[in-house]
Parts: sequence; C-alpha cells; structure tokens
Amino acid sequence: MATARIGETPTTMIDRVASILESFVGKRPLTLAEVARCSGLPRSSAHRILQRLVELGWVERNEFKYALGHRMFELGTQFTRQRSVHRAALPVMTELHRRTGLTAHLSMLTGTEILHLERVGVWPGDAGEWGVGARQPVVRTAPGRALLAAVPAEEWPEIVFGAVPTCYSVRSAVQLDRDLARIRDRGGVAVDAQGCALGVTVVAAPIATGEGGHFALSLCGPTKSVRTEVVVSDVRRAAVAVWRQASGMPPLRIRATEARPAAPFTRASRPVGAAWSPDTAPLVG
Amino acid sequence: MATARIGETPTTMIDRVASILESFVGKRPLTLAEVARCSGLPRSSAHRILQRLVELGWVERNEFKYALGHRMFELGTQFTRQRSVHRAALPVMTELHRRTGLTAHLSMLTGTEILHLERVGVWPGDAGEWGVGARQPVVRTAPGRALLAAVPAEEWPEIVFGAVPTCYSVRSAVQLDRDLARIRDRGGVAVDAQGCALGVTVVAAPIATGEGGHFALSLCGPTKSVRTEVVVSDVRRAAVAVWRQASGMPPLRIRATEARPAAPFTRASRPVGAAWSPDTAPLVG
Repeated sequence: MATARIGETPTTMIDRVASILESFVGKRPLTLAEVARCSGLPRSSAHRILQRLVELGWVERNEFKYALGHRMFELGTQFTRQRSVHRAALPVMTELHRRTGLTAHLSMLTGTEILHLERVGVWPGDAGEWGVGARQPVVRTAPGRALLAAVPAEEWPEIVFGAVPTCYSVRSAVQLDRDLARIRDRGGVAVDAQGCALGVTVVAAPIATGEGGHFALSLCGPTKSVRTEVVVSDVRRAAVAVWRQASGMPPLRIRATEARPAAPFTRASRPVGAAWSPDTAPLVG
Repeated sequence: MATARIGETPTTMIDRVASILESFVGKRPLTLAEVARCSGLPRSSAHRILQRLVELGWVERNEFKYALGHRMFELGTQFTRQRSVHRAALPVMTELHRRTGLTAHLSMLTGTEILHLERVGVWPGDAGEWGVGARQPVVRTAPGRALLAAVPAEEWPEIVFGAVPTCYSVRSAVQLDRDLARIRDRGGVAVDAQGCALGVTVVAAPIATGEGGHFALSLCGPTKSVRTEVVVSDVRRAAVAVWRQASGMPPLRIRATEARPAAPFTRASRPVGAAWSPDTAPLVG
C-alpha cells in the first residue's frame, strides 16, 4: 500500500477526488462500479476515496448507491452567500416575481456559458437548463448576450455557435452583432423571444458590480403573454436597484458624483457603459 | 518534495483538501495566510493545494483573496437537483409564498440540526440562520420538532439543549415532550411562536418520502400577524401535496389502497404515523 502511494502527488490525489465528485454531475445516484467507470479510477481506489468522502458528508451512501452529500451542498451555498450581489438581488427578484408572476433568474458569466445562481419562480415547468446550478450557452440566452454587450471586448469569452434549439436562435456572428446593437439601443437590456426555447421570452440586464464576475438579472415568461416593453423597463430598474443595493447606495435619487468607477459596466469602454452610469440609468424608488 | 509526500495516504490528502475547503465556511474571502491558519496546514501545502483547486474552479482567487468557486456551487446544487422531494416542493412553496406572503422553507434533518435546502421569501430580513445552506438546532425549531415527532425514536439524533435564544425556547426534556405531544395532537404539525427568534412564528410539517433523509416543509412570518390555525392547515396540506407529488401520485382524492408503505412516516410506530397515512391526511385539490 505505502509503495502504491509514493507516486501520488497531491495534485493527482486532488484530481482523483475531483474526478469522483464530478462524476455525479447530472446523474442519478451511482453504484461503486459506475463511479469507478465515470471517474476512470480503479474500483479499489474509488472505493477507498468514497469511504472517506462519505465520512466527510461530501458523498452519501444509500444502500448500494452513492450521491453527493449535504456537506457538499452547504459548501456550495457559500459561493452565493458570500456575494453582496446575491444578497441584494434576492429581495428584488422575489418582489418582481410576486408582482409579475414571471420567473426571475440571477446568472453569472462562466466561460462560454452562463450559470444560474438563483431563481424565483417555477416556469418553465421543466427546470432542466433553467434551474439553479444549470448552465446555458452565452450566445443563446438573453443574460448571456446582455453581458456580451456590457463586458469590454477584451473580457469576452470565446464565442461558440453550437446547436441551435429553435429557428429564432442566434446562429452567426452577423446575427450576434445585430442583436448586440439592438441591446445597446435598449440601454443594455437584451430580449430573447423563443431563441432559447419555443414559447419562452427572456429579458435580461447586466448588473454593474465591483465584485469579481459578471452578473445579469432576467425575467422569463410565455412569449404569447409577455408584454416586452413593460418587462424591459422592469428588468432595467431591477438591475439598477440591485447594483445600488450591492454597492451600499440608498435606493433613492442619486447624483452623478456618487458614480462608482469600481462597477465594471460604468468603466466599460463601450457606449453601453454610459447607459449604466448613475446619470443615465433609470432611477428606482 | 517526493519524500515529503511519501507519508501522505489518500485519506490525509483528502483531509487536507477538506480542511482547506471547510475553512471558507461562514467567512469572507481569505488570504493565503488565513487559509493556512484556518486549515492548520503549512503555508506551502496550502498554497500548492489552493493552486490546483483554483484550476478546478472549486476555489477562486481575486487578487490576494481566495473564496469558494462556482464549480463548488454547481456540485452542491446536485444534492437538491437529484431529489424528487425538492422538485416536488419548489412549486408548492412558491405558490404558498405568493398566496400567503409568508416565507417557505424546505429543511432536512442532519445530525442534531436541520439544514435549510430551499427557501421562498425574504423574511426575516437577515437571512443568516434562515438562509439556504444555513442550519438551526433541531429542538429549537418547528421543522426540527415536527421531524422528532414523526421519526421513529430509534432514528432520533442526540438531543442537545444548547443556548436558548428567547424566553419562549424549549429548554428541557419535559418541555420537549410536552411540545411533541401537542404536535401529535395537531396531526404532526409543529408550531414555534418566538422560540427561535422574538417576533417570528414558524409552522412546520414533516414530508413523508421514501427518499433517504427526513424532510420538513415550513412557513414563517411575523408572530403578531400570523393566523396560526390557518397556517397550520396550509402547511399540512402543502406537505401532503409534496409527498403525493414526490411519490408520483396525482394531486387528487386518493384511496387507502394507494398508501405507500415506503413513506417512512406512514411506517412510523408512533401515533403520528397514522396521521400521515392517506386515510387521515388532509386531502389536496
């Protein structure tokens, strides 16, 4: 045994733990054999590591099946709980949902995708790619394109035009540029009508924040009933309200002198940046 | 370096990774020195492990500070996304919040505490111990005592009467037994009026489910405005609705023959068990 471990640098050991934990993503509980196969580890190593992960509460065992445990959930929630943008967004999203009945999402730019950090509402029914912890391609979604329009070009992720879910989806650089121009004309707000899923309209605005990462707030609802111009206004105001709250500013009329240069979208070199400065942003309250 | 690693069994390496990740719980972003101190690891090991965790997205580095990363968040969400009780509870909780304005929680029994898995609503304002991913002592909370009354004695956690936050808190075995008797008289529903925090009333019911773990659904609101008897009825019906949905039963009138012996609370040897069988549980729809 000892000799077997001499070659294991911490990195490879971390990678083994990672490969086991990652093997549970998007799957139902797994048997030991399935974990070994998914992680590419020998059954004996997988079993030895799983035993310790179960003791730590990171993995839980139910008869012969393994799944991620509650301690992993608690660790994961730290990511959002430590963020002022999340604390600021939750009340705003909850009020928006209560008032409009639409589903509110707080999303974050991660590589070529957006990651949903918070969601208030249950429509569309199948939470799949709309659920908390789910990802959607940047170019396909309103939050993704709202962030592309707001983020300086040098911070852009690699743009990937992958599978196109509907005939309304953005499928080329030309279409993307045209949509980004429309977003800037709207003062930074993106509208996606059935480009992500048939029957679903999503309206999104970036949230200016000094925190690491780029965040967007969005509302989604049935295309046939959503009154776009009203939702665009709701989302813009909500995004500014979250930005002000997260920046420690009172939800009142503000003076230009209160502008926060730390907020990336007010620093942005693009025209949209100006649209998010306190001078031109719609006021709340 | 190599010799330094010979002694590292996988278990101790896993423990090093765990000690680093756990050191972020409940804290703002940490410097390398702080991580080393919190994890009890040499600065060099802490730095080596952190570097790899950053590459994995489990930890993120912002200038000189480290914090848990978005990949840890995504892994954590798998815990709830894989659970039918969570999928079934979310729409019910959202509707309850929209209709009553009260905050709905889905909580799970973990050791001597309950862990909040989901929350719809933002009251009480300071999400601290009421937030998703937060824990509260079993005996102090309505969800905790509702689960104690529902779970067979052999599955009880160790009962700890810790710090008492208010003069209304349960502080002794005698008071606990008296409250559990009241809960059984109420057909399994627990009511906590200001025992957890002054001005806060919480009403909770266990959710019968065949899944591993014991879950409770609760509503909380301001003591001065909550109409307890109405909320008790709302919570009981909601818990049954979630149980039926999670068990794959239609939300319609049910016959005794549809009883699911797999549901722990219908198996329970205590009187309350009967209160949660389809025969006597309040019907939904």
